[in-house]
Amino acid sequence: MFAVEVRDHIMIAHSLPSPVFGPAQGMHGATFTVDAAFMTESIDQHGLVVDIGLATDALAQVLAPLRYKNLDEVPEFEGKFTTTEFLCHHIFEQMATRVRAGQLSDAGRVLRLRITLHESHTARAWYEGDI
Amino acid sequence: MFAVEVRDHIMIAHSLPSPVFGPAQGMHGATFTVDAAFMTESIDQHGLVVDIGLATDALAQVLAPLRYKNLDEVPEFEGKFTTTEFLCHHIFEQMATRVRAGQLSDAGRVLRLRITLHESHTARAWYEGDI
Amino acid sequence: MFAVEVRDHIMIAHSLPSPVFGPAQGMHGATFTVDAAFMTESIDQHGLVVDIGLATDALAQVLAPLRYKNLDEVPEFEGKFTTTEFLCHHIFEQMATRVRAGQLSDAGRVLRLRITLHESHTARAWYEGDI
Amino acid sequence: MFAVEVRDHIMIAHSLPSPVFGPAQGMHGATFTVDAAFMTESIDQHGLVVDIGLATDALAQVLAPLRYKNLDEVPEFEGKFTTTEFLCHHIFEQMATRVRAGQLSDAGRVLRLRITLHESHTARAWYEGDI
Amino acid sequence: MFAVEVRDHIMIAHSLPSPVFGPAQGMHGATFTVDAAFMTESIDQHGLVVDIGLATDALAQVLAPLRYKNLDEVPEFEGKFTTTEFLCHHIFEQMATRVRAGQLSDAGRVLRLRITLHESHTARAWYEGDI
Amino acid sequence: MFAVEVRDHIMIAHSLPSPVFGPAQGMHGATFTVDAAFMTESIDQHGLVVDIGLATDALAQVLAPLRYKNLDEVPEFEGKFTTTEFLCHHIFEQMATRVRAGQLSDAGRVLRLRITLHESHTARAWYEGDI
Repeated sequence: MFAVEVRDHIMIAHSLPSPVFGPAQGMHGATFTVDAAFMTESIDQHGLVVDIGLATDALAQVLAPLRYKNLDEVPEFEGKFTTTEFLCHHIFEQMATRVRAGQLSDAGRVLRLRITLHESHTARAWYEGDI
Repeated sequence: MFAVEVRDHIMIAHSLPSPVFGPAQGMHGATFTVDAAFMTESIDQHGLVVDIGLATDALAQVLAPLRYKNLDEVPEFEGKFTTTEFLCHHIFEQMATRVRAGQLSDAGRVLRLRITLHESHTARAWYEGDI
Repeated sequence: MFAVEVRDHIMIAHSLPSPVFGPAQGMHGATFTVDAAFMTESIDQHGLVVDIGLATDALAQVLAPLRYKNLDEVPEFEGKFTTTEFLCHHIFEQMATRVRAGQLSDAGRVLRLRITLHESHTARAWYEGDI
Repeated sequence: MFAVEVRDHIMIAHSLPSPVFGPAQGMHGATFTVDAAFMTESIDQHGLVVDIGLATDALAQVLAPLRYKNLDEVPEFEGKFTTTEFLCHHIFEQMATRVRAGQLSDAGRVLRLRITLHESHTARAWYEGDI
Repeated sequence: MFAVEVRDHIMIAHSLPSPVFGPAQGMHGATFTVDAAFMTESIDQHGLVVDIGLATDALAQVLAPLRYKNLDEVPEFEGKFTTTEFLCHHIFEQMATRVRAGQLSDAGRVLRLRITLHESHTARAWYEGDI
Repeated sequence: MFAVEVRDHIMIAHSLPSPVFGPAQGMHGATFTVDAAFMTESIDQHGLVVDIGLATDALAQVLAPLRYKNLDEVPEFEGKFTTTEFLCHHIFEQMATRVRAGQLSDAGRVLRLRITLHESHTARAWYEGDI
């Protein structure tokens, strides 16, 4: 299986209002380094999994509504705990929608995505699934 | 599939007494940066794969008997070559036992583990398997 | 000149309420990977710049009041823009006070400190100065 | 599953002569950090996936014809777009041939390879497949 | 002393036509990860060394004429060996000119620059000097 | 000032036999990623600080007596605590001797060296001084 992975980052604030989160219950924040991997069984006649420019643009578009935001005030996250793993899945769904809509001009080659969020130098999470 | 991965490290001495190991036959040592990845099909009502605090504690506990040790003197490694890949598997088994015992309070969500040991800036090994 | 550098991290929220900060004016956040370097002209009879355990503890103590905090609510930062470079200087001052007070048992060897905050995979800041 | 991964790098020039590649159509170049992962179901009596020295040598040999080259002048790449993903697959095939020929003395343990090329701090590609 | 450092990258081809360069004499290439550090004695009333957006833009502008280029065809490099250290100095001069011209709106605070080029995972070069 | 820095690594065992070292008193070990930086005021007619091949070879030669060794058995370290900072200074002295002897063919350009040892993902030390 082939893959191409591109990187971007976001800087967000959020709270995790449950005793489960101990010291992270209150308002705090994170820099998430975000990797998006696009997986295919083959490459096209130009030797591409996906156009890396389109992939980078798609990732930037998916991250735009989160960039420099307080996630507690993002309507679609109301009532959700915006954990790193939750955000991996959210970004996965946003990217999958764009891939399915043909926005990456991949002619249906992309079969699988993995979205990785690095929250610190000692912890990260990812979600990987079929398109 | 979801995953959360946490990082710790150990600094150990050991020998690898077989001609197979060439210059590494004698007593030498390594810093192993250790990544433990916990994989699940779903996240819980708090948006968690596993509690990252419990995961970090479990990794520290699994590594405690190895920390600052001469592995040649650890009784359970007698007669074993404590290669990087062997240690990945050893740490995997120790962690799997803890997960199975419910120590991560994951309610059975964790299905798979991957233990990665980085031995230098140019080499690493891992073991991945089902719980 | 000798140096020893240790690493920790904090995850904070803050706003930067001036048009100068463009998209970062509102409430957002950051993971800061924090490196503290201790510099001396010589090492002691044990071959040490500073005891790395004491250095790590001192860094953890200096970061404790910031960990998982909304910096907008930290009284001593009232009226300040808590930029990465401002925080480097703040942490420098806190650490310098501890070094001067002999908390690192360095017998006056530490002459200089550098505090580096990595705010993302593409940007970092530092403050370096004499004790 | 067990894996051992070793790292090397190459510095090459090439062009990507199609409008698809936008600013990368003309002669430019890349440093590719190359990771080769060898995967097995078990380790041998010495605790090895593969001999890391043999793996490192094999990677160096596979990369030798590319090192400091203009890929536009490498005969076997004539008419090909030498994209990062294409090169991952090319290096995979070269390494698979060596593994199948027994050059890694792995007694048939290696079942799968993954070749990763990091082209910058924000993009990488890989090809993974069975031997 | 305060510093802010931002990162970008370029992918270039070049040759180094002298026997001194051994295997790197012919046409080959490199990805250079480029770090630009801006150093000041103080921060302004907004807590800034320099506006990180302006710094990032300035670095992108300085790198634009090199991006995806064959340096052998860049007129101003005619007769020069475009080594990593030469390019560090070239980029330093370009950036210093922009800082002196007030393009970073730093009100004269920036006293010193350091330009670092990482050419591989095992080698890098830098040039540091006063503005 | 110009600099070129090259990287290698060693894997060693040692003990630090004093209560000062707490859990690290007994036999343990480390992977040290070693960076050697060579600093000059100018580059030569080929655009070089130093020949990177000669620099890499010199570092490998300096590290050879330490590679895969138990430092407790290295005669010249008898009665010494082989801390990370001590080893930085030791490697500095070995390299300085080679530079002074003209082994890097630098025609006296190299004025200063810095030797950095990374002992883990959270700690490193360095020694920097004039030749």
